[in-house]
Amino acid sequence: MSSSTLLDELIEALRCLPGVGAKTAQRMAHHLLERNRDGGRRLATKLGDAMQRIGNCQRCRNFSESEVCALCRNASREAQQLCVVEMPADQAAIEQATGYRGHYFVLLGRLSPLDGLGPKELGLDLLSARLAEGEVTELIIATNPTVEGEATAHYLAQVARQHGVRPSRLAHGVPLGGELEYIDRGTLAHAFGSRLDV
Amino acid sequence: MSSSTLLDELIEALRCLPGVGAKTAQRMAHHLLERNRDGGRRLATKLGDAMQRIGNCQRCRNFSESEVCALCRNASREAQQLCVVEMPADQAAIEQATGYRGHYFVLLGRLSPLDGLGPKELGLDLLSARLAEGEVTELIIATNPTVEGEATAHYLAQVARQHGVRPSRLAHGVPLGGELEYIDRGTLAHAFGSRLDV
Ligand SMILES: [Zn+2]
Ligand SMILES: [Zn+2]
Repeated sequence: MSSSTLLDELIEALRCLPGVGAKTAQRMAHHLLERNRDGGRRLATKLGDAMQRIGNCQRCRNFSESEVCALCRNASREAQQLCVVEMPADQAAIEQATGYRGHYFVLLGRLSPLDGLGPKELGLDLLSARLAEGEVTELIIATNPTVEGEATAHYLAQVARQHGVRPSRLAHGVPLGGELEYIDRGTLAHAFGSRLDV
Repeated sequence: MSSSTLLDELIEALRCLPGVGAKTAQRMAHHLLERNRDGGRRLATKLGDAMQRIGNCQRCRNFSESEVCALCRNASREAQQLCVVEMPADQAAIEQATGYRGHYFVLLGRLSPLDGLGPKELGLDLLSARLAEGEVTELIIATNPTVEGEATAHYLAQVARQHGVRPSRLAHGVPLGGELEYIDRGTLAHAFGSRLDV
């Protein structure tokens, strides 16, 4: 039997975190209670706020607490380049590793008909409308080098050409079958810099 | 630049968890936002509650949301045996691995004069008062087999004898230099079962 119901509930709740099993969750709970209650309280507040207030940017679909995210509103970013990624983590990886100064579009997935993910679910109507605005001249396709990512890239290149926009892809250097999010910054920066027209 | 200040704050706040660096914190935040907002909200609530309401049992010093914890209040536990551990995690490990049905006393540390941890900080006045009540006949000393843990055990054995209480220690099987919390259940159960008088 346990000495604290609330503690058990906290340990159970911590298991919603990826890669956190029962033992790690217990260690986390004890650590906070013993050594960092302020940190625990701050995390509780930020977590509640974030789950409540973070939605998706109406323009790029990345995480945002406002209707249009800060990056989309940033007038100093170049409007001619639009980089399409699968997930917010991919956007963060490119932003942190490269000197890219253009805009992003986040699919929040990849074409996967079996999972019910088609052009509509990936916001490609929004992307088409964006390209139809006429400002974008290059669509940098940075989907993952997986089978579904490649299929998505192929589809995106067609969409770009329909709007007279030049599609490009990241250069060789991205290992096949790898996930963009986990690639070291140097490799990612190099691949981004030597991207090719497709 | 980042697309969401609140997201950055959440990622930073997650780093209060042990073993969680920047990359893992980002992965956790994205995972919750993308796939498990209910889990994130539940964690926020439980975390806030726990940091606010979990204190220490006035009788055994283990974590408790009430003045006296459920285990101390449990009349079906045997009052003759009192097991002393360093940390709440050690109590949890013994409770989960063994069939022990007695009570516990949690030092919340170990004798460590250089860190300002003496008998007072470990609640040994409370422990002495408990032994003076006369119900406890065996003090099971389950401190860690480290230098400080051994010194603490030696001190505790003296305290027990002063009160006419028989001190015992866990049997061989606990690896020297190891931490009780990380020992596999089988070894711990065996060591607990064949504890020796000291
Ligand atoms: Zn945006
Ligand atoms: Zn208690």
